[in-house]
Amino acid sequence: MPSQIKFARCGVITRPMNDVAVAENISPQLVHEQVADGTMVIPANIIHLANNLKPIGIGRSTKIKVNANIGTSTTSSSIEYELEKLNSALDAGTDTIMDLSTSGNLDEVRDRLIRKCPVPFGTVPIYEMVLGRNVTDIDEKVILDTIEKQASQGVDFFTIHAGVLKEYLPMAAKRVCGIVSRGGALIAKWILEKNRQNPFYELFDEICDIMFQYDVCFSLGDGLRPGCIADATDEAQIAELKTLGELVARAREKNCQVMVEGPGHVPFNQIQENMELQQKYCRNAPFYVLGPLVTDIAPGYDHITSAIGGTAAGFYGASFLCYVTPKEHLGLPDVDDVRQGVIASKIAAHAADVARGLPGSANRDKELSQARANLDWKKHIADAIDSKTAQQFHDSACQKSSGKTAADDDYCTMCGRNFCSVRINKELTKIHGKK
Amino acid sequence: MPSQIKFARCGVITRPMNDVAVAENISPQLVHEQVADGTMVIPANIIHLANNLKPIGIGRSTKIKVNANIGTSTTSSSIEYELEKLNSALDAGTDTIMDLSTSGNLDEVRDRLIRKCPVPFGTVPIYEMVLGRNVTDIDEKVILDTIEKQASQGVDFFTIHAGVLKEYLPMAAKRVCGIVSRGGALIAKWILEKNRQNPFYELFDEICDIMFQYDVCFSLGDGLRPGCIADATDEAQIAELKTLGELVARAREKNCQVMVEGPGHVPFNQIQENMELQQKYCRNAPFYVLGPLVTDIAPGYDHITSAIGGTAAGFYGASFLCYVTPKEHLGLPDVDDVRQGVIASKIAAHAADVARGLPGSANRDKELSQARANLDWKKHIADAIDSKTAQQFHDSACQKSSGKTAADDDYCTMCGRNFCSVRINKELTKIHGKK
Repeated sequence: MPSQIKFARCGVITRPMNDVAVAENISPQLVHEQVADGTMVIPANIIHLANNLKPIGIGRSTKIKVNANIGTSTTSSSIEYELEKLNSALDAGTDTIMDLSTSGNLDEVRDRLIRKCPVPFGTVPIYEMVLGRNVTDIDEKVILDTIEKQASQGVDFFTIHAGVLKEYLPMAAKRVCGIVSRGGALIAKWILEKNRQNPFYELFDEICDIMFQYDVCFSLGDGLRPGCIADATDEAQIAELKTLGELVARAREKNCQVMVEGPGHVPFNQIQENMELQQKYCRNAPFYVLGPLVTDIAPGYDHITSAIGGTAAGFYGASFLCYVTPKEHLGLPDVDDVRQGVIASKIAAHAADVARGLPGSANRDKELSQARANLDWKKHIADAIDSKTAQQFHDSACQKSSGKTAADDDYCTMCGRNFCSVRINKELTKIHGKK
Repeated sequence: MPSQIKFARCGVITRPMNDVAVAENISPQLVHEQVADGTMVIPANIIHLANNLKPIGIGRSTKIKVNANIGTSTTSSSIEYELEKLNSALDAGTDTIMDLSTSGNLDEVRDRLIRKCPVPFGTVPIYEMVLGRNVTDIDEKVILDTIEKQASQGVDFFTIHAGVLKEYLPMAAKRVCGIVSRGGALIAKWILEKNRQNPFYELFDEICDIMFQYDVCFSLGDGLRPGCIADATDEAQIAELKTLGELVARAREKNCQVMVEGPGHVPFNQIQENMELQQKYCRNAPFYVLGPLVTDIAPGYDHITSAIGGTAAGFYGASFLCYVTPKEHLGLPDVDDVRQGVIASKIAAHAADVARGLPGSANRDKELSQARANLDWKKHIADAIDSKTAQQFHDSACQKSSGKTAADDDYCTMCGRNFCSVRINKELTKIHGKK
């Protein structure tokens, strides 16, 4: 069965393309054209699609999407808890899920998560390859078998760190933070210990063949992404980015869908340049960024540093933001961290959509603001990105203020009735109306 | 006693100018020059300075500063609780405090807060003027007496909404959200009910005389700031901004220090333009922005929407960020909201300083990242913007993972030992070292 890009290139508008067009309020023709030329991807493994997947489009003509990472760690490995995280992420509105599990029965974890996951589901297959074996024991068979096995389970996109080339490692050795990508570090170790080229690069055509067969979308991993401000936009990052650009062309030639992963830690003033370089080198493949974090000094608040960088990245060219939770750099996120991470990234994605003038994106802002100006608390809160939290904050503030109740009131506890500018404004409108 | 600007213009380098130079690691001459030409302000009421004030400089040659608003509301008016908020803000590292109290014994609240406040302290005097009287009963005497009284208590900067002119009100009436500034809305009501010009504009020279006497710095309020994305950068906002620019010139002529307040709600793509317009119209007076919020749809998370806008604002020209707490638009902030608001704004201020290349600003990022790369948890956490929270997150993640303890460990629970890229990196460095 052909991939979405192959269908598009053959002139077929598929059901997923139509679904994306409807969801995004754009024409099926536009989706079709962009899937054909690779500037939009619809990560939709044929197995997942035949089951419970609702396809989404990722590219510059659609709303910017958000990914939530979940998964077991060697320090915490309950499937039930990962299912809770999945639900937390979906409830907060994540557009995709990545399962980064590294302990327990990975097949079972993956299988149970996919069955409950109606959004595109991604993995980083090298995590499974290294489980229970030394990294140097990863060989061609392990790589291709693992990828095929996971593809057959319905995974919609794979992070493949095929751009971490042997010749780039000395560049990364000079850095303040070296290689911070887990997959990148594992591959670097393989390369250095075996003194051979990156096996994912060497096997790229074979990997493409499996990806095509199930229509798994590539997410070309940036194993050399900068791990701190000081390493941003350096030689190693840019060298890898150029290689990822070549791999984009090779994947597309093989009728595979492909997106490219990006940094990481980038100071605010370098974000525009980073996005432009990616678009240039990577042939406008959808850009999937982690953060970027605009400062290193805020562990505990890196959902915020990421929301800042993510907004700028989305404005200047990224199509897909990987969330960062408040626990980043400190520990494994819990269910609430997952929620906080998704919301922060969704704020960034939406702010970027509004800023880049994506048609219709500012409507929700206007409607909420009209409700706010009308002191229509019900609609104000219903339109919020996280109505539960907004309601809870409003209610708790009301309770603290001697019996004031939230419902249909003409002010809030922030300023109190006499100092409520919104209420005074309604009076002003009446005076203006009279004149 | 002359104001700092007057001293500077007379060629005197004062102790506060020297203190600022030391704190910012710049030359006293630079501080002196910029205070003289008004591009830097040192809000330091002579009364507060004689007591417990540690002066700070606000301008483009110094680190971007952060303000925290506290104060009683008609729904909550305990002085003790406001003192707790003050401490919370100071502990989180706020650079200034504004007391926006609107209920209780305002003189007592203000007096007790100032005595415990070692950072510049601001107020919005119209809030006191309207307390216990109709807005239309505010007259020349009430205005000047209140301003003089508060100045004599040691307030370092006053928000004065002198730019809300009668002729601009019809422009604001067309808006989605009208006038959202509390002070702006009160003045608009006064103007419309009395059919007269803004009394703060009419009395501007007299107000300058009081400000000069105590060296209270003007913070020219943007009473017509946009209250939603749809109203951003509109006719009303820009008309007022031009008037604020004229008032900057008049205040400087009277040897008063002056900064200008700015929006509010601004989509990310309009922030650069907003900052440039302010610098152009307002003669490079330090720009003090509220947010700006880059989307309206995130009540409950407006500390994040503000951190996004604040970073861009700081990068493009603002010198001073007013915090926004998670309770914005929903209720009065509590002690923890105050902390969250300050931290989010400090992240934005720092990210902007790094982005604009303020000398030395990225050193802390580099040091923390080096500690991170060395798995030196103690230094990593000590260098964090909020060490308490970072420590707590790290400890709680460790506790959850079956007895792992935080101290001097070579990985964290985020990835676990085998998947710790930082740990693998240290191995790689050894391999590289050998070759």
